[in-house]
Amino acid sequence: MSNLPKQVYISEEGPREGFQIEKGPIPTADKVRFVEALAETGLKEVQCVSFVSPTRVPSMADAEKVAATINQKSGVRYTGLWLNKHGLLRAQATPLDPMAWVGLYASETFSVNNQGKGTADLIASQRAVLTYLVEQAIPLEFGIIMTAFGCNFEGDITIGRVLEQVDRLQSLVAEFNLHLPVLKLADTVGWANPDRVMRVIGAIRDKYPEQRLGLHLHDTRGTAMANAFAGLQMGVDSFDSSCAGLGGCPFAGHAGAAGNICTEDLAFMCEEMGISTGLDLDALVACAHLAEEIVGHPLPGKLMRGGTLTHFR
Amino acid sequence: MSNLPKQVYISEEGPREGFQIEKGPIPTADKVRFVEALAETGLKEVQCVSFVSPTRVPSMADAEKVAATINQKSGVRYTGLWLNKHGLLRAQATPLDPMAWVGLYASETFSVNNQGKGTADLIASQRAVLTYLVEQAIPLEFGIIMTAFGCNFEGDITIGRVLEQVDRLQSLVAEFNLHLPVLKLADTVGWANPDRVMRVIGAIRDKYPEQRLGLHLHDTRGTAMANAFAGLQMGVDSFDSSCAGLGGCPFAGHAGAAGNICTEDLAFMCEEMGISTGLDLDALVACAHLAEEIVGHPLPGKLMRGGTLTHFR
Repeated sequence: MSNLPKQVYISEEGPREGFQIEKGPIPTADKVRFVEALAETGLKEVQCVSFVSPTRVPSMADAEKVAATINQKSGVRYTGLWLNKHGLLRAQATPLDPMAWVGLYASETFSVNNQGKGTADLIASQRAVLTYLVEQAIPLEFGIIMTAFGCNFEGDITIGRVLEQVDRLQSLVAEFNLHLPVLKLADTVGWANPDRVMRVIGAIRDKYPEQRLGLHLHDTRGTAMANAFAGLQMGVDSFDSSCAGLGGCPFAGHAGAAGNICTEDLAFMCEEMGISTGLDLDALVACAHLAEEIVGHPLPGKLMRGGTLTHFR
Repeated sequence: MSNLPKQVYISEEGPREGFQIEKGPIPTADKVRFVEALAETGLKEVQCVSFVSPTRVPSMADAEKVAATINQKSGVRYTGLWLNKHGLLRAQATPLDPMAWVGLYASETFSVNNQGKGTADLIASQRAVLTYLVEQAIPLEFGIIMTAFGCNFEGDITIGRVLEQVDRLQSLVAEFNLHLPVLKLADTVGWANPDRVMRVIGAIRDKYPEQRLGLHLHDTRGTAMANAFAGLQMGVDSFDSSCAGLGGCPFAGHAGAAGNICTEDLAFMCEEMGISTGLDLDALVACAHLAEEIVGHPLPGKLMRGGTLTHFR
């Protein structure tokens, strides 16, 4: 228990993760309202939209409009996800923060299905992106290994394979004399278990002891909170999450793909263990109810129903 | 990770936990159908009903009828919960196994509200029950400390208080030259966090190193699976759970009281970590869907939506 961090950084991805998977069109005004409410909870970073093909992800066709409409509050970063240089250029043309990242998939098949490129092609295109980032003096924020714990197409992923992809990512950024402020491991389709999380993190730590690590977890099979606790025990202090547990990947090859770990449930667990999140749990619960109102169906968050412990103490 | 047990014992409480809290009357035939389906999943123990006051818990008014109708399969224990000697006598008059137990609440207020007795009165009545159990040669199966991690009426519960109640329970059974095959800690109203689970278990282990421990967890605030993982790391190998995450306590003083940890989610996590459960996950998922059909509303289990990993491998 001694390895639990004193504080954690939680990056909110609910608006992007959540609204990209919804079938019904979500009005731009609702997306903006949700982002603005999240910015009042103590969150320092809200991922608002993704700059992806409106043909593949129609729910993100209004990304520029959302970006332009948000009334930005100082002290909060409003980011947009992009998957290639075209998306990055779109992001740069908006008031959103162009969040700079590089990433590879542990599963080659998932890489091709989700991003249209295998590892070699992805590295080539990311090399071009890194060149551009360096030219523009945009700081690199994180690296990510997706499907790091398993894949619906390829099944189990060996730790050796994860390390291979980590090595490739580290070599890629080293070409530019850059380093990864955070290396995130994504359980993209909910295969992780807490023992595995510890082992994968342990293996990366052995090789890259100074590398700060983060977790991007999905709760497809109910293990997300246990996986987060496993990460916390290994000293992981950076998490992506979604308010109310919004989200899911549209290209997971799997109908039951569930949302990210729930922001307020994760923050509650951290705070109860004395790990500071800087977040107002009751305000997050109110955002979770707002999210449910916006999407028009029940969302999986628990704290939003169970309530915080504040008024019991 | 070295402390993870090789196998765990999972006691199914869905029919009792789940149906006691449902507002609409559940037909006896549906209760029986659910119990009989659960018995086909590898579960060795299914808690079918509670023999409590039909005035306080109207949904259990047909307990005797359920008990008489179940077609019992050999190798599976079908049990009924009782809270006092009257309930035990009712259980004994049915074909169900009279599951013998003793328990105290860490929260005095919860004890009074849930069971109508404080610690002293509860000990007195359990002394009478133990006398009867010994006369009847019914083996004692477990002790339980309820509200061991917090209480909606009293707030936080100190570890000292939990130890006090454990001591009282150990002294009580020692009067009869009995011991507790399992001592269960119940997070009755969902206050536990995994760090706390480790600390409470550690404190009990220090004092009673030979005592086998179990966990009865509720997922009120999303921490149940993390709490279970914390328990597993401390070597806990006995869990109560509910298929599909059915359940919740009708007297928790709290509208959002959630069900038990979900049987198939817990079993999935264990199996993925190489901990044997003896359970057929796909059969459990089918039971979870049956439970949803019977109660007529969505239930919180995750694996029932995400699916097992069997067909991906």
